[in-house]
Amino acid sequence: MATISLGFYLWKRIREVGISSIMGLPGDFQLELLDYIYDVPGLQWMGNANELNSAYAADGYSRAKGIPGCLVTTHGVGELSAINGVAGAHAEQVKLIHVVGQTTRPMQKRNMMIHHSIGFDPDHRVYAKMSEPTRCAAVELAEITDLEKATWEIDRVIRECFVQSFPVYIFIPLDMVHEQVAASLLDTKIDLSMPSDSHAEAEAIDATIEALQEAKSPTAFIDVLAHRHNAKADAQAVLQKLNVPVSSSVMGKSIYDETLPNWIGVYNGVVGAAGTKNVMEHSDLVLVIGSLPSDTNTGGFSRKLSKENSIEVNPQSVIVKGRTFPNIWMKPFLKRLLSSLSSITISAPSSDHTLANGIHTDDNAATHITQAWIWSRLSAWFRSGDFLFADTGTAAFGFTDYPFPSKFSFQTQNYYGSIGWATPAALGCAAALQELAHETGQSTGRTLLITGDGSFQLTMAEVGTMITRRLRVTIMVINNAGYTIERAIHGAHQSYNDISPYNFRYTLQLFGMPDDQAEKSFRRVSTKEELEKVLGDTGFEEQEGVKMVEVVMDKIDAPARLLEQIATRGEKQINKMKEAGFLK
Amino acid sequence: MATISLGFYLWKRIREVGISSIMGLPGDFQLELLDYIYDVPGLQWMGNANELNSAYAADGYSRAKGIPGCLVTTHGVGELSAINGVAGAHAEQVKLIHVVGQTTRPMQKRNMMIHHSIGFDPDHRVYAKMSEPTRCAAVELAEITDLEKATWEIDRVIRECFVQSFPVYIFIPLDMVHEQVAASLLDTKIDLSMPSDSHAEAEAIDATIEALQEAKSPTAFIDVLAHRHNAKADAQAVLQKLNVPVSSSVMGKSIYDETLPNWIGVYNGVVGAAGTKNVMEHSDLVLVIGSLPSDTNTGGFSRKLSKENSIEVNPQSVIVKGRTFPNIWMKPFLKRLLSSLSSITISAPSSDHTLANGIHTDDNAATHITQAWIWSRLSAWFRSGDFLFADTGTAAFGFTDYPFPSKFSFQTQNYYGSIGWATPAALGCAAALQELAHETGQSTGRTLLITGDGSFQLTMAEVGTMITRRLRVTIMVINNAGYTIERAIHGAHQSYNDISPYNFRYTLQLFGMPDDQAEKSFRRVSTKEELEKVLGDTGFEEQEGVKMVEVVMDKIDAPARLLEQIATRGEKQINKMKEAGFLK
Ligand SMILES: Cc1ncc(C[n+]2csc(CCOP(=O)(O)OP(=O)(O)O)c2C)c(N)n1
Ligand SMILES: Cc1ncc(C[n+]2csc(CCOP(=O)(O)OP(=O)(O)O)c2C)c(N)n1
Repeated sequence: MATISLGFYLWKRIREVGISSIMGLPGDFQLELLDYIYDVPGLQWMGNANELNSAYAADGYSRAKGIPGCLVTTHGVGELSAINGVAGAHAEQVKLIHVVGQTTRPMQKRNMMIHHSIGFDPDHRVYAKMSEPTRCAAVELAEITDLEKATWEIDRVIRECFVQSFPVYIFIPLDMVHEQVAASLLDTKIDLSMPSDSHAEAEAIDATIEALQEAKSPTAFIDVLAHRHNAKADAQAVLQKLNVPVSSSVMGKSIYDETLPNWIGVYNGVVGAAGTKNVMEHSDLVLVIGSLPSDTNTGGFSRKLSKENSIEVNPQSVIVKGRTFPNIWMKPFLKRLLSSLSSITISAPSSDHTLANGIHTDDNAATHITQAWIWSRLSAWFRSGDFLFADTGTAAFGFTDYPFPSKFSFQTQNYYGSIGWATPAALGCAAALQELAHETGQSTGRTLLITGDGSFQLTMAEVGTMITRRLRVTIMVINNAGYTIERAIHGAHQSYNDISPYNFRYTLQLFGMPDDQAEKSFRRVSTKEELEKVLGDTGFEEQEGVKMVEVVMDKIDAPARLLEQIATRGEKQINKMKEAGFLK
Repeated sequence: MATISLGFYLWKRIREVGISSIMGLPGDFQLELLDYIYDVPGLQWMGNANELNSAYAADGYSRAKGIPGCLVTTHGVGELSAINGVAGAHAEQVKLIHVVGQTTRPMQKRNMMIHHSIGFDPDHRVYAKMSEPTRCAAVELAEITDLEKATWEIDRVIRECFVQSFPVYIFIPLDMVHEQVAASLLDTKIDLSMPSDSHAEAEAIDATIEALQEAKSPTAFIDVLAHRHNAKADAQAVLQKLNVPVSSSVMGKSIYDETLPNWIGVYNGVVGAAGTKNVMEHSDLVLVIGSLPSDTNTGGFSRKLSKENSIEVNPQSVIVKGRTFPNIWMKPFLKRLLSSLSSITISAPSSDHTLANGIHTDDNAATHITQAWIWSRLSAWFRSGDFLFADTGTAAFGFTDYPFPSKFSFQTQNYYGSIGWATPAALGCAAALQELAHETGQSTGRTLLITGDGSFQLTMAEVGTMITRRLRVTIMVINNAGYTIERAIHGAHQSYNDISPYNFRYTLQLFGMPDDQAEKSFRRVSTKEELEKVLGDTGFEEQEGVKMVEVVMDKIDAPARLLEQIATRGEKQINKMKEAGFLK
């Protein structure tokens, strides 16, 4: 019987499901496991500056490629450093495979005081217990003596990662890496199909169509889980066919093509255009796809979508006017719904929806860059195919009112909201797009990163990885002297909302870009005119590698929709914002 | 009854025990708690670039000041980001107080989908459960409705932090911050005395003295827990009085004054000077103070200290030749032992110990900077009063053979071994030394940081905080193109041991130092002569603020003692190191 090492088996499986780049840092307990990466054609080691960044990078990779991102860390120190990034992926239903190289089985059995442990009689599994809430499944190979079961378990958690769209863990003790398993196990591919109940699906389709046909003023609402569960194209097709008015949440923005006539903008309860709110709240049936109803994604829980007036297409169920059809997976359901719709007409209301109550600002007098101006201006600069990563801060809340190009992808982490996420996530996206270009032979869109100066400080070292890997990323850092979003919430002038002021001009140089290239790849702008110049400079944009724009803005200035969102907390909060100068 | 806010109460207590600098990042769930910091005289907000760095900074602060370091983070995203740093403090028995601002009690009760949560019915306490293994005590104020109990609980965990020398957590929901408690509660100070059993202590002293008097060739061995349990001075006094030969572990280096004649060097089993090993292994009684027997601190478990031939002074017990006296705290025990010793003579062997078998190298031919040369050269450059933070890598293992000046403090994280720890830890130390200088009116030693280029990438943003806070730190970064310590272990030429190459010259500038000052504060050296020049340049050294030296060294070059340590893994490992070129 031809055999292969368990380590090789693991990476072959990871490659099989489409992964090419492995994030992570080396460590004593997985160096030998990492060796096998180089034996698998098409797989490559990325390497990051630290493990939290690795988790975020794997997150961004997954969002761009629709398959899991993968990171490898070392026992204890590495896995715990990454844990917040994995928790974020769980909250946002992003697929991650976190491989952890553990101490050897004898070390574990004897509770040896090996480095990276805690205490005098250390339980080496304590870290695995700590990360339990961050994942949906894990395989702890330490407990498996039957090696065929080990391979079976690896396959199981990789499958779960796809089916549930959550992080999974694979713990592999150092001494199991070279254990031999049957090579023929690889002949059967991992089953990645969704385990939908076909009968329930058919019933749900009937109920859905019936409800849609009965409705007088049906509409649709698309949210972020449609993206996470790889149903963006299917949802797009269904909603385009239905031709009902379509809105989205803030996190769900860009999932539906915002250039289509039936796009009516973001519906975010009291936080958003009144025109959109009006249409949505007068609709007698809303087709809700992939809802994630966090405070930040519902205008502080002010969005009104009643069970009775909704068809909810969830990751693993469909609920038609309160009646639940379980065991239905989103993507196959939408596919089947689309084909069922071909022979059916829905009496959708006219598609002539004007966003009459979008934000209108009059900051024409200002020559400096204002929050009222920049997001609409940037939206006009975006192109089809681009991926935009906006970190939690003013950047994540500025775009609400402005339509994106078609085939655009807007990525935020609004529910988990861990700042610093966007920079490594953009790295992961750029790596994924580079792979896609290579795999398909077609050019892809740009990776754009917009982050606050505060958020940038947490994880900026990944700019070094972008430069080393010759990835193409355009970075915009909003330099507004600290944590503006927090200033709007509380303590506008307290020193805890200040940050160490960076001289961003030296970022690319520190991270290894040659001086002359760095000179050409960096711009600092503080007026609209200067930013216009950069946006119009195709020479700047078309350069290879990392480009960086420092955008200087006011400390006390925030997007109107962000202030509305914060204002949902009540009168006292509104007064605070007035006092601080955010509101007039 | 005069009342104060619970938030104010908390910070008053934190100040009361000697803490002046608060590490952390702001977040929505503790902004209002942070306000109270400014109301407490002597307390100041430090602020960091990210929360992992905050934990490390608090760790370094505690090591320098002998009291807890304190960090504040926000619900979920902040506390999880810091968790690896807190786990490290636990492993190394460093005092930390981690204050976490949680969501409000109603949000928690109703499992609301507030940002920073996980899932659709989120348990807001899940993070507190995750961090349980990293701490020795916690108070979850969310469960406390009786406010007097809340203050009692705060006092309890602060006390535990001192008594156990481990991290503690204080979770405070946002809506409890302004609750009122009696101001008079502050009139009684927190009891920080060690709860020693005086009777057991007396018995242990008798047994100790008896054993010492019976011994023919008594010696002493000092380890790192003597530092953590604030017993450095007491141990020093006892060992000086006994005048027996004194050795230490690698982590315990610098705790005993290495300029004294009875200092005989590091005893690290097979990894260290044979002369020291010989004395220690022929001693019929070893007084062991504060042992932490991890693989990295025992020459891969090759140190021979038998129970029968030892008196072990542990943090909370004394064991005399196998007989355990419980409930004895290290510091008061050593104090009492010292006074009992005054009337007693120990027949210690002659103090004429030569370290005949220390490492001798002959790299005189080399003009470039070698591992065989640099550590002894730097040791000669160190001064009394300095604090040295050496990150896990070649830096942490290079100093083994070279005596430090008296009143020197050598800090590593050899047991937990999370790379990146040293940079923020040095920040914390510098802040503590600045405070001490202010409190005592006397000048303190320098904060010196020696880190690998690999380690530096994980946490370097804290250089920004050093610059902003005008702290005085001399940074040496070993630029040896990646993870050399890992290369010695496995995969010497694999790309996973490479890192993104930085142009360190721009570090200080990026992090906000004005160009002309940065120019004067940075040196790059790649020959011995160049490094000599820097070490002899008092003008460079005496500058205020952060100084940085990039030390270029070979990729395949490691300290002899590190290679010996790794070689304890066996023949196969030795061959690997030969093949890679580390050993001849
Ligand atoms: C890891 C983490 N730490 C702290 C916070 C709390 N927090 C939320 S937004 C924010 C400030 C972001 O500031 P910046 O990136 O500069 O954006 P701005 O609002 O200024 O545009 C902070 C500190 C968080 N969400 N995540
Ligand atoms: C957080 C964390 N990640 C990974 C490791 C594994 N690790 C131990 S030492 C080391 C390399 C350190 O390299 P460097 O700081 O450059 O020091 P050198 O040995 O080159 O002097 C690594 C990656 C670790 N200990 N901690």
